Amino acid sequence: MWADIRAKWIGIRYKYRKPLAEFLATAIMIAFGCGAVAQKVFSENNTWFTVSLAWGLGLIIAIHVAGGVSGAHLNPAVTFALAVFRGFSWADVPIYWVAQISGAFFGALVVYVANCSALRAADREKTMGIFFTAPQTTAISTVDAFVFEFIATALLLIIILATTDKKNLPAGVVQPLTMGLSITLIGTTYGYQTGYAINPARDLGPRFFTAISGWGFGVFSRQDYYFWVPIVAPFLGATAGACVYDVFICSSDPKTADTEHIC
Amino acid sequence: MWADIRAKWIGIRYKYRKPLAEFLATAIMIAFGCGAVAQKVFSENNTWFTVSLAWGLGLIIAIHVAGGVSGAHLNPAVTFALAVFRGFSWADVPIYWVAQISGAFFGALVVYVANCSALRAADREKTMGIFFTAPQTTAISTVDAFVFEFIATALLLIIILATTDKKNLPAGVVQPLTMGLSITLIGTTYGYQTGYAINPARDLGPRFFTAISGWGFGVFSRQDYYFWVPIVAPFLGATAGACVYDVFICSSDPKTADTEHIC
Amino acid sequence: MWADIRAKWIGIRYKYRKPLAEFLATAIMIAFGCGAVAQKVFSENNTWFTVSLAWGLGLIIAIHVAGGVSGAHLNPAVTFALAVFRGFSWADVPIYWVAQISGAFFGALVVYVANCSALRAADREKTMGIFFTAPQTTAISTVDAFVFEFIATALLLIIILATTDKKNLPAGVVQPLTMGLSITLIGTTYGYQTGYAINPARDLGPRFFTAISGWGFGVFSRQDYYFWVPIVAPFLGATAGACVYDVFICSSDPKTADTEHIC
Amino acid sequence: MWADIRAKWIGIRYKYRKPLAEFLATAIMIAFGCGAVAQKVFSENNTWFTVSLAWGLGLIIAIHVAGGVSGAHLNPAVTFALAVFRGFSWADVPIYWVAQISGAFFGALVVYVANCSALRAADREKTMGIFFTAPQTTAISTVDAFVFEFIATALLLIIILATTDKKNLPAGVVQPLTMGLSITLIGTTYGYQTGYAINPARDLGPRFFTAISGWGFGVFSRQDYYFWVPIVAPFLGATAGACVYDVFICSSDPKTADTEHIC
Repeated sequence: MWADIRAKWIGIRYKYRKPLAEFLATAIMIAFGCGAVAQKVFSENNTWFTVSLAWGLGLIIAIHVAGGVSGAHLNPAVTFALAVFRGFSWADVPIYWVAQISGAFFGALVVYVANCSALRAADREKTMGIFFTAPQTTAISTVDAFVFEFIATALLLIIILATTDKKNLPAGVVQPLTMGLSITLIGTTYGYQTGYAINPARDLGPRFFTAISGWGFGVFSRQDYYFWVPIVAPFLGATAGACVYDVFICSSDPKTADTEHIC
Repeated sequence: MWADIRAKWIGIRYKYRKPLAEFLATAIMIAFGCGAVAQKVFSENNTWFTVSLAWGLGLIIAIHVAGGVSGAHLNPAVTFALAVFRGFSWADVPIYWVAQISGAFFGALVVYVANCSALRAADREKTMGIFFTAPQTTAISTVDAFVFEFIATALLLIIILATTDKKNLPAGVVQPLTMGLSITLIGTTYGYQTGYAINPARDLGPRFFTAISGWGFGVFSRQDYYFWVPIVAPFLGATAGACVYDVFICSSDPKTADTEHIC
Repeated sequence: MWADIRAKWIGIRYKYRKPLAEFLATAIMIAFGCGAVAQKVFSENNTWFTVSLAWGLGLIIAIHVAGGVSGAHLNPAVTFALAVFRGFSWADVPIYWVAQISGAFFGALVVYVANCSALRAADREKTMGIFFTAPQTTAISTVDAFVFEFIATALLLIIILATTDKKNLPAGVVQPLTMGLSITLIGTTYGYQTGYAINPARDLGPRFFTAISGWGFGVFSRQDYYFWVPIVAPFLGATAGACVYDVFICSSDPKTADTEHIC
Repeated sequence: MWADIRAKWIGIRYKYRKPLAEFLATAIMIAFGCGAVAQKVFSENNTWFTVSLAWGLGLIIAIHVAGGVSGAHLNPAVTFALAVFRGFSWADVPIYWVAQISGAFFGALVVYVANCSALRAADREKTMGIFFTAPQTTAISTVDAFVFEFIATALLLIIILATTDKKNLPAGVVQPLTMGLSITLIGTTYGYQTGYAINPARDLGPRFFTAISGWGFGVFSRQDYYFWVPIVAPFLGATAGACVYDVFICSSDPKTADTEHIC
């Protein structure tokens, strides 16, 4: 019977290997990233910098977990921009999105289980920041936050396209390392106003987790329904960033350019 | 006569090259890791982050010391999980375990010798933390600690399997670097409650060293015999982590999967 | 019509691909570097070290953006030294300079847009340091600053020539990573007196941006017209550094040296 | 006439390319390392960690400067150990030593010139630490310091031999990066008692520079003539470390071992 289950699972896994990889890798990225915020909230061990570093190092691992299987997008906005500018299959886009958001949900669950006692003992108002992003002070308007997320995600896409562009200077075997350090970079440069979601799944998955695990659905209406900003801004920013890269950088000969790039 | 000794040693060393490599590499990892904690205890130079970094950088070196000879497991739980999921020889498992634990014991001795005067002058109660792990506050229950160590070790195994998986996106020449940074990552994400042993040898070897070098065997009964947690939790966590990786990630064609992977 | 525009742009872009790449990459480097300073000014998140790290990590990305197209000089002093010592085309020098300085200007604009509200609310005197460099205390004379910038840029050129020298020990696939970390290194070693411009475009572009966006042209006359120091010193330092490398390091056989190196 | 000088210099440089490379690379390592200490003394920018990082990153650059020409020993104790255990030519040992010590002297000069005004304004007693090492408190006995330097240098040699051992797991293209990070590691683990010279040239060159540039020859008699410790301990530690690596690690078949390794 065990052999039967195993054989069946091998078939199912092969068919769904891409969303399964996106799911696990996004879960791990969130388990590390939100885990670092949890350690910052519950101890004196972490600083803004070490949390940014953890998000970056967690991404390195997540890229290795899914990179060879699904391409390790880990971010609905990245999947969207690759569909628009790099011919990623539109049919796979919604499957990736579901996998990424549910992976982020599951990653938040891991953080919750690991820090269960501490979370229960603490004030819920102070532990929300472990899971989802928010404007860091009341002085930050929605427009400020939107622009910040937009620019940060645009830069993220330029980084992704540049480090993987085989006709430019690809990062090769250190691409995961370079990508990870880039997230730390974004955290230290375009992080302070919003907590740099730059990824709809990173914010939505854990936010949904908190909604159903004790914090309540008020997490969606907080700060004038801020939750839409880390969803919409990354999509627009990712598209803009990919567009900028393609408009400016092209080492292709014009004769062959047509068939190689959308732009 | 010297030539005789040398010839004999070359033979012995060749026969035991794997446990010898595990012994030396684990000793070096502990000499650096516990050495960083010692520097934190005896000076203002280190923080939680720089200690986590030192554990990571020390692992990079340890991997280079043993990697080409024994595979650089450095961790009984890793050896166990590789035996279960990757066909590592069960006959070698106990040999590796002895080498790893005695290497960790010897690494603790190096830290002791280097910091001898400072250790003698200091309160023994405050210097225990240099050698073995413990719940960081009394608010942390054994269950909390167990779950924390379990999750952290599970993530460790996913990292190991992902970065070395030739059918996924292996880290290649930067694998030691990526592994090392991953330990720093675990320190900044799942470290604050227990001091992240995630390795039975890392805790047991130095704990045994303190028991016989002045601290006394009370180090085993402290905190309700806590010492079993960093032994048992890593074994279970490592198994669970490897299982998760194999269940989720598989780029093999189902036709060939049977002969390639246990799962 | 869109197809027409696209075809025309592909032709134009191919012709100007090098200055376009220098422009975008310098803009990104400044967007990250000055963005990190902005985060330091407007929040508690950054320190001198994390800002230095951000300048370094930003350079890594900038090298990947332009490296395969224009060589990623990103610095008029580097372009000049490569023309003198490595046969870079003199005809391209002014084109690169314009692209680098205007790219730096545009990068400052990105920082301005992202931090718009915070910049408007803050004292202009305190936010200048986000964009251009200055002696860090009044005790630092112009001579001190000049010598500091000179030495730091000389070291920068030695780093560039050493890590790319195919007859020495080139950094290969990790060259961008090593270059980036070198900027962090310069920040932690020759940074405190002047804020380490070591790049005429890095200072001049954003300074010009501030001049026309509200701070006024007084930014050029400040501190006894200090702005010439981060322009002139890097040119002289870059030349001196490249000269030192070529005088000291040469693995070429004397018989073939003549045709291979200027020195 | 210029062509004559150039032709002659090319010949001289070819003949002395190895000591010239050791000289320049050691000078650069010291210019960065002591430069970081200077920035720590004269500003709030640096911490023990960022200084340790700067010593590490400076070594990465120094390895690239000399690696392909002289092997980038940069340390008389390393040169000695490689002569004993890896067949490095004894005839070249004194030449390397002179180049390394005079390079370190010159590196100290660069730091002096860059920080000239600040050094003149400051108390000489407080600026000595920029140039040479010392026990960090009076509680540290000479024996403590000696043991610390011995162990740290032994670990250094194990790192060097492991990361370059082609029969083990060599670090390949990231070897300079791994070596550099190892120095940072030693700084965070075996650094606090003595300031981790682990290199006779690193201490002696800059100490001699201070002796003749204003601090006086009292720098040699300070702290009971401590200056011999960072000379003697590294030589013994390097020998011991290389010996440990060779005794423990060997993947060679015993039949061929004789001709391949000294041990």
